[in-house]
Amino acid sequence: RKFYGYTGLTLAKWTITITIGLLVGLIAFIIEFLQEFIITVKKEWTERLLDRGLWLVFFNYTAIGVTLVLLSSCLVMFWAPAAAGGGVTLVMAYLNGNDIPDFFRHRTLFTKILGTICTISSGLPIGQEGPMVHVGGAIASELTWMHGRSLTRERNVPAPQSWWETWREKLRRLTPKAWIFDFYNDKDRREFISAGAAAGLAAAFGAPIGGVLFSMEEASSFWSRKVMWRSLICTTCATVTLSWLNQRRFSFSLPGTISFQGLKPEFDIIDLPLFVVTSVFAGVIGACLNIIHDWLAQFRPSSKHRAMRVLEACLVTFISVAAIFMLPHHFGHCLPIQKGQEGDEFWYRYTCPLPDQETGVSYYNDLASLYFAVPRQTIQQLLALGDAGDSPFTISSLSIHSSSFLFLFILAYGIAAPGGIFMPSIMVGASFGAFLGRIFQVFFPGWSVQPGMHALVGATAMLGGVFRTTISLVVIMVEGTGGIEFLLPVILAIVLSNWVAHYIHSAGAYESDLERIGEVHFLQSEPSQKFDLVSARDIMASDVICFKEITSVTEVVSVLRETCHNGFPIIRHTHDPDAYNPDGQLVGVILRHQILLLLERRAIFEADAATLNLPMRHGAGLQLPRLTSKQRSLDRLMRVYHHVHYPHRRYLSSRPEAVTELEIDELLQEFAMPTVNGSSSNTNLEEGRSKCEDVEQAANHSGKELAIDFRPWMNRAPLTVRAETSARRVYIIFRTLGLRHLCVTDASNRVIGIITRKDIAKAHREHMELEIDPDTPKDSA
Amino acid sequence: RKFYGYTGLTLAKWTITITIGLLVGLIAFIIEFLQEFIITVKKEWTERLLDRGLWLVFFNYTAIGVTLVLLSSCLVMFWAPAAAGGGVTLVMAYLNGNDIPDFFRHRTLFTKILGTICTISSGLPIGQEGPMVHVGGAIASELTWMHGRSLTRERNVPAPQSWWETWREKLRRLTPKAWIFDFYNDKDRREFISAGAAAGLAAAFGAPIGGVLFSMEEASSFWSRKVMWRSLICTTCATVTLSWLNQRRFSFSLPGTISFQGLKPEFDIIDLPLFVVTSVFAGVIGACLNIIHDWLAQFRPSSKHRAMRVLEACLVTFISVAAIFMLPHHFGHCLPIQKGQEGDEFWYRYTCPLPDQETGVSYYNDLASLYFAVPRQTIQQLLALGDAGDSPFTISSLSIHSSSFLFLFILAYGIAAPGGIFMPSIMVGASFGAFLGRIFQVFFPGWSVQPGMHALVGATAMLGGVFRTTISLVVIMVEGTGGIEFLLPVILAIVLSNWVAHYIHSAGAYESDLERIGEVHFLQSEPSQKFDLVSARDIMASDVICFKEITSVTEVVSVLRETCHNGFPIIRHTHDPDAYNPDGQLVGVILRHQILLLLERRAIFEADAATLNLPMRHGAGLQLPRLTSKQRSLDRLMRVYHHVHYPHRRYLSSRPEAVTELEIDELLQEFAMPTVNGSSSNTNLEEGRSKCEDVEQAANHSGKELAIDFRPWMNRAPLTVRAETSARRVYIIFRTLGLRHLCVTDASNRVIGIITRKDIAKAHREHMELEIDPDTPKDSA
Repeated sequence: RKFYGYTGLTLAKWTITITIGLLVGLIAFIIEFLQEFIITVKKEWTERLLDRGLWLVFFNYTAIGVTLVLLSSCLVMFWAPAAAGGGVTLVMAYLNGNDIPDFFRHRTLFTKILGTICTISSGLPIGQEGPMVHVGGAIASELTWMHGRSLTRERNVPAPQSWWETWREKLRRLTPKAWIFDFYNDKDRREFISAGAAAGLAAAFGAPIGGVLFSMEEASSFWSRKVMWRSLICTTCATVTLSWLNQRRFSFSLPGTISFQGLKPEFDIIDLPLFVVTSVFAGVIGACLNIIHDWLAQFRPSSKHRAMRVLEACLVTFISVAAIFMLPHHFGHCLPIQKGQEGDEFWYRYTCPLPDQETGVSYYNDLASLYFAVPRQTIQQLLALGDAGDSPFTISSLSIHSSSFLFLFILAYGIAAPGGIFMPSIMVGASFGAFLGRIFQVFFPGWSVQPGMHALVGATAMLGGVFRTTISLVVIMVEGTGGIEFLLPVILAIVLSNWVAHYIHSAGAYESDLERIGEVHFLQSEPSQKFDLVSARDIMASDVICFKEITSVTEVVSVLRETCHNGFPIIRHTHDPDAYNPDGQLVGVILRHQILLLLERRAIFEADAATLNLPMRHGAGLQLPRLTSKQRSLDRLMRVYHHVHYPHRRYLSSRPEAVTELEIDELLQEFAMPTVNGSSSNTNLEEGRSKCEDVEQAANHSGKELAIDFRPWMNRAPLTVRAETSARRVYIIFRTLGLRHLCVTDASNRVIGIITRKDIAKAHREHMELEIDPDTPKDSA
Repeated sequence: RKFYGYTGLTLAKWTITITIGLLVGLIAFIIEFLQEFIITVKKEWTERLLDRGLWLVFFNYTAIGVTLVLLSSCLVMFWAPAAAGGGVTLVMAYLNGNDIPDFFRHRTLFTKILGTICTISSGLPIGQEGPMVHVGGAIASELTWMHGRSLTRERNVPAPQSWWETWREKLRRLTPKAWIFDFYNDKDRREFISAGAAAGLAAAFGAPIGGVLFSMEEASSFWSRKVMWRSLICTTCATVTLSWLNQRRFSFSLPGTISFQGLKPEFDIIDLPLFVVTSVFAGVIGACLNIIHDWLAQFRPSSKHRAMRVLEACLVTFISVAAIFMLPHHFGHCLPIQKGQEGDEFWYRYTCPLPDQETGVSYYNDLASLYFAVPRQTIQQLLALGDAGDSPFTISSLSIHSSSFLFLFILAYGIAAPGGIFMPSIMVGASFGAFLGRIFQVFFPGWSVQPGMHALVGATAMLGGVFRTTISLVVIMVEGTGGIEFLLPVILAIVLSNWVAHYIHSAGAYESDLERIGEVHFLQSEPSQKFDLVSARDIMASDVICFKEITSVTEVVSVLRETCHNGFPIIRHTHDPDAYNPDGQLVGVILRHQILLLLERRAIFEADAATLNLPMRHGAGLQLPRLTSKQRSLDRLMRVYHHVHYPHRRYLSSRPEAVTELEIDELLQEFAMPTVNGSSSNTNLEEGRSKCEDVEQAANHSGKELAIDFRPWMNRAPLTVRAETSARRVYIIFRTLGLRHLCVTDASNRVIGIITRKDIAKAHREHMELEIDPDTPKDSA
């Protein structure tokens, strides 16, 4: 329907987009609120116990932390394993075109939200940004599916009885049919999930533009202006919702997570080398973090040993909490609380002397205040360090904080609990930058060094070193901190850290993670230069299993049992009968799940052996008598049925066992089927959809065989490339069209190979490592 | 060579990127400086003449303006026609894959810079942002070509004589050969031009991130993380250079063109409806501007009548300057100069009473101050309107300014002089927004309405309505104004204005312009939904002209004369001799300029009639005797020669007359060529490059014909699609791979059609207009 120039479909898309935004904002608020609530309760509890003895406090503190992580990691390991870690990596993999089992299910979403709250409030150096991206994607996925399900469920209701159902029936008729069919394809889902992921990050940082750019630059592989536009709406909704919930009133001001004040945006050319030093150091730390994480990954228990993973998580938590508890005790400095900080509950006592009754001076432990506060507040404090004389943190405390936090971060990064690495990276970078800034202050007293600026530069450079993202990080930092005046130092930090980090370690955190996950084949947006020198011939798999246009069921079933291939080229019989399989010209491609559906729906007929071996020409071959009238109905079913009714089935269908579930063997054994009612009421699309069994051919079965005619359902326009095509072009075609397989043909259009996502990813990985001397180009002759 | 992990090629690319950034920053500074200089001189002159009588001032003022525009439009019309207008549209078209003649030449660049300075300082409502994008692209193009030329020129120097030349020779040997060959292809040029365009916009607005995003969202059709990264470096260099030149000292602060202060970033929910009103109104004005501009375009003289175009420009200038001069005289209000504005030379007298000697109060004409100042200062003043009581502009002046400026803007938009529409759009929007804000102030006195906020919202919404850009506009506005606190109102304005404007007029300013330029075929990033219902068969051209693998020169030449096709499929003779042209299988594709080069280099041989009609099989046919040894040299030449040596030739070669220039007719007539020296010194690549004439076959010519063998040079892996492929997929393949033609084949790989960029663009335009009822999907049966 048209509604002011928009069709109902467009309207529905906008509704879903806005709903995603609102929900993501709400969930972000819940996570933040609960997390701060738990941390505050913990803190109050600790403070109350402080007089009763330090050991009691320690026991209490660690017990709470370990319990929280135990809960979260048990949920993850025994209920929803896909919820572990940050989730950004898998969102990227999904949006790149991989199927990730269970990644967007209810239980994963629930575990992610609850687990993140528990993990963060336990005191582990873990952030909520990565999980928010996953949650955003999951909500988007949820909304698209829910819609699809409710619509299809409605279709199964019996005839309307009450006025209510009649009315609902009418309403349903109003809905354009196109909805269900144009809506739940991969492309639309991907777009919604891109928008959801953007909203998640936007809500986490209070950065609507940054979220969109992150989704574009890092998370999404397919992008268009439409998606950008939709993501922008979505992130705006999420940010406004969060801002409204946080302030309990509508406001236009940004919730900018780590907004800071107190810095002067004035720097001179003499500050430049200092910024360079900070950026380079932070970039190096970021790159080293990735290297160490990669190296540590081999020592961690594999995810098969669930109990071990849980134990690991608890152990890491214990170490972290103990360190957080002990370090301030041993190394913290007790400083008097400054004027203007009085009201702030953030600075509190912990092993420091009681407030001096005479002078009215209270004391706080600077290291404890760095460690015990909500991480966001700590970062705010670090970034706000101006060039004023009295710094709230001593140099030694900053050095201990940055190094110990880095150590704990490395330990915690990779445990079996939900949690992201954005916030800890910022924390390490900011702490390290502030430390360097303080040192510069001491060494160059006349230069008016602002440690807060160095904290900002350090945090940015650290993120740059870890993630290797460019534009989106700049915008996130600018939006998150609200400091547009600091744009140029931020850009400088990003550029330098990227350069330095790239020299140390070529892959960013997400890329390394993607490489470590074996079953995911991630295609970067650009193939490596060396792919130019390779042709399609070199990367294709040449053992292609093809079907003829009409193939016996026995053969089809045995092939499906033996292989896991997802697509099968259909070849034509040439007119000379001796030319068989290898000589056949490619006429189409059929997918595995299409064949399974055909078998399930018994869209098979009996053919005698002569038909099966009959030489056939295109269009002149055997025509199925009644199929033409129903072809469209089954055709439509073929396209959408599987996705709508079995959302989690597509990846299951690639198992060889899937064939068994169709009970096709019984059919083959019985093979004695009476004629089903012929052309009864198959004009009705709805009924034709629900029972297609009458497609089965009525025939007597003397000397005949069951066969499938693939022609009506195959994709008759498969994209093919020639064997001489450069691998680079193949890669780009694969990437931009989101293909799963691509047939390689010779000049006569005969199939000589097939290229799958796996082949490309494998070849790319191998050729990346292949060293080709740039001085000897192709023509060394 | 490797240099800390980077090859020389990469290093060269970085050098070029940074150089582009620096140059763009420099040119932006020159344009701004000269323009402000001229305006200031004009203003001082006017002020001095003010006492001598108004008519003298008027004459003087208009004479200067008309002279400036006369200069600029004469330059454009008689020397460099490609420099007219903003240029963003043509940059977009170029980056989309079109060839724009003369667009990136020296004279165009020079005219653009000089013309922009003249046009802007004449007082026309025209901005420098669009031209800066063009200038950035042109500089990038210039740098890539210059490099290529100098390298190739060096190759022609004779043997080294002095120590200097020997040394230079050695240096040249050090340069990896890959440089020239991997560097001047379309892809690399496009990437540099993308970065240059980004730098141009960044310099114009002082918005490094906004520039990158603009280049990504609007200007560039091909984008990758690498390009983004490079553009970021480029924009940063440009911005820093500009900032340094402006402030005469190194500074990290942004040069943000229209940065403003004085607004409070506090708004309440009651402000929301007011913002909505402003956004919607401004969006509507923006869309109407496009409609009126489209409508007016038919009345303007065509660009063939050069004198008429110049006259038009002068007339428009006269009207504009006269209006600017007369309006303040008749409608301006004389207001006393406030405290704090004293030092600002911006507010000056003009028909107002002389300063009151007793009270010391000076007066200024508010409308004159809006009109006469440098546009940027006016915008700053408008955006800085807080909710303080005394506004520097009266409501009536604002209303007259906004409406008259809009009128003059429409007149000036489209004249034959360089100039962009960014700044006038902002001006109209800001003026209109400020007007609305003042009205709101009057009507809702208790609401603390800030007219400056409405000016900001209005300017943003106006841009949104005119350009339909989203993210990049948000970032440009935020960076340009330096007001991150106003992010959410800006987003709101963009979203609302886009929605409203889309309902009124579907295409943005750039899209309308692209449609109006006939010879450019611009492919949007996404095909329209309706393209799903069409197949490749419906959009292809079926009159394909194919060549056989070995074709007689006579036939080739006559085909080249008769058609303008750019690519020719090469077909194979099938083994049954009666199957001829339409039955041949596709074995390759050869481009027009490749054929021209083959002819120019006389890479032809004599063949008897029997050879020409010989049935041939792949690889078993006639082998050219000496060609194989030189094949690689000529092959390499074929790839790069044309681009490197004749930068502006590629589009020329598509004229049928290009064949004549090769003097091939003389060759065919003479046809009596003695044998050229056979295998003399053709091992030397350099020499082989400069004289390839000896490829010509030595033969006696009794009953023989000259022929070309295309096989060694054709692209042996042409991408093909089947006729059943959906047009949507064809579109995406075309767009992402930047193809120029795509062969359509049947199941036997025989060519049945060809799709060119033109076909796609035409079909897309037609199908966009085709109304398909969404309620009757494909299966209406």
